[in-house]
Amino acid sequence: MTTIDDVEEIKRLKARYFRFHDLKMWDAFLGLFTPDVHIEIGDTVMRDPAAMVRITSAWVGDATTVHRGFMPEIDVTGPDTATGVWSMDDYLVWPEKDGLTQGMRGYGHYYERYRKIDGSWLISALRLDRLKVEVFEGGLPPVPTV
Amino acid sequence: MTTIDDVEEIKRLKARYFRFHDLKMWDAFLGLFTPDVHIEIGDTVMRDPAAMVRITSAWVGDATTVHRGFMPEIDVTGPDTATGVWSMDDYLVWPEKDGLTQGMRGYGHYYERYRKIDGSWLISALRLDRLKVEVFEGGLPPVPTV
Amino acid sequence: MTTIDDVEEIKRLKARYFRFHDLKMWDAFLGLFTPDVHIEIGDTVMRDPAAMVRITSAWVGDATTVHRGFMPEIDVTGPDTATGVWSMDDYLVWPEKDGLTQGMRGYGHYYERYRKIDGSWLISALRLDRLKVEVFEGGLPPVPTV
Repeated sequence: MTTIDDVEEIKRLKARYFRFHDLKMWDAFLGLFTPDVHIEIGDTVMRDPAAMVRITSAWVGDATTVHRGFMPEIDVTGPDTATGVWSMDDYLVWPEKDGLTQGMRGYGHYYERYRKIDGSWLISALRLDRLKVEVFEGGLPPVPTV
Repeated sequence: MTTIDDVEEIKRLKARYFRFHDLKMWDAFLGLFTPDVHIEIGDTVMRDPAAMVRITSAWVGDATTVHRGFMPEIDVTGPDTATGVWSMDDYLVWPEKDGLTQGMRGYGHYYERYRKIDGSWLISALRLDRLKVEVFEGGLPPVPTV
Repeated sequence: MTTIDDVEEIKRLKARYFRFHDLKMWDAFLGLFTPDVHIEIGDTVMRDPAAMVRITSAWVGDATTVHRGFMPEIDVTGPDTATGVWSMDDYLVWPEKDGLTQGMRGYGHYYERYRKIDGSWLISALRLDRLKVEVFEGGLPPVPTV
């Protein structure tokens, strides 16, 4: 196992993050994070994988979501630690409400940390900083708080 | 040649797939598939490279097309076999018809198989599953059937 | 250092290109190019890193910009030379003018050359060819010429 193999594994970890999210494979999604993960997306802070899945799956349950990452900068900082920066966009569309489209398009960067546990890379920290968010005319459903 | 080199070669194969398609380099595009390739895009099934090129080039002849792949998950499963999953989007715009824009934006995933023949990786199977398709107000030209 | 490591380094170089541009980290952006870089974007030709930064930073000073690359095809052609092709898009939005949105969405390909100097890959040539440009109803501010 060389550094470049670790870099590729971490890219695949993030690929599963997007794919499991958008296909709503929540059980598999849950397995991508360390037990002590720290996640900050907008004003929402989540401190364990179960909270991430509970809040996310409740929020987008009725929505079609498309999330993508681009242009990764992965640094393997030790035998079982790494950091990454990703450009990202997301496109979320809920069913119409009062004839108006609910949803958004967003652009930004993920700043992440990874840890290798039992031979598998997992996400241990994730912060999303936005360049731009465009909310559609119907607004957004509130993010669940529990 | 290590696995990571094969993974990079398969990423480049798919990069040529998109580039040759969007630049309408059909002779080069033809060379990206195994002779027995199996392709499923929507309701259209194509069973050899010539059919893929004939149908695709006829459909988008008048269109500007932009296809992109994201977040590959490539598994090299043997010395000359591999599988891949890609997030994708496409944006197709035909000339206006009756003052209305014909075209679409789509989002989804490619599920693919690859085979290495004479040292070169080729696409041997491709299925496109959609997350979302947005057809513009002028609709889409019919996909040629021959 | 193997070829695949060089390929990954060049991908990271281009990742910094996009990130430093969109976050307007112009001092860091300046350091991504060889002193003799040759850049052609539309009708604008720039022949050194300072010109690139001066013109770009002046043009997008008031704008939010989102640039991304996809599907790289990197060829390492010698111990310190390489070429690359990237699919790209950009999304530029300036403040409204007379109630109209100024900006554009564009799609195309970068054709690039890279040179390794003192162990670091840098961009030595960049040409952007467009597939499609969509200018918003408020048009675009003129590109500075100095």
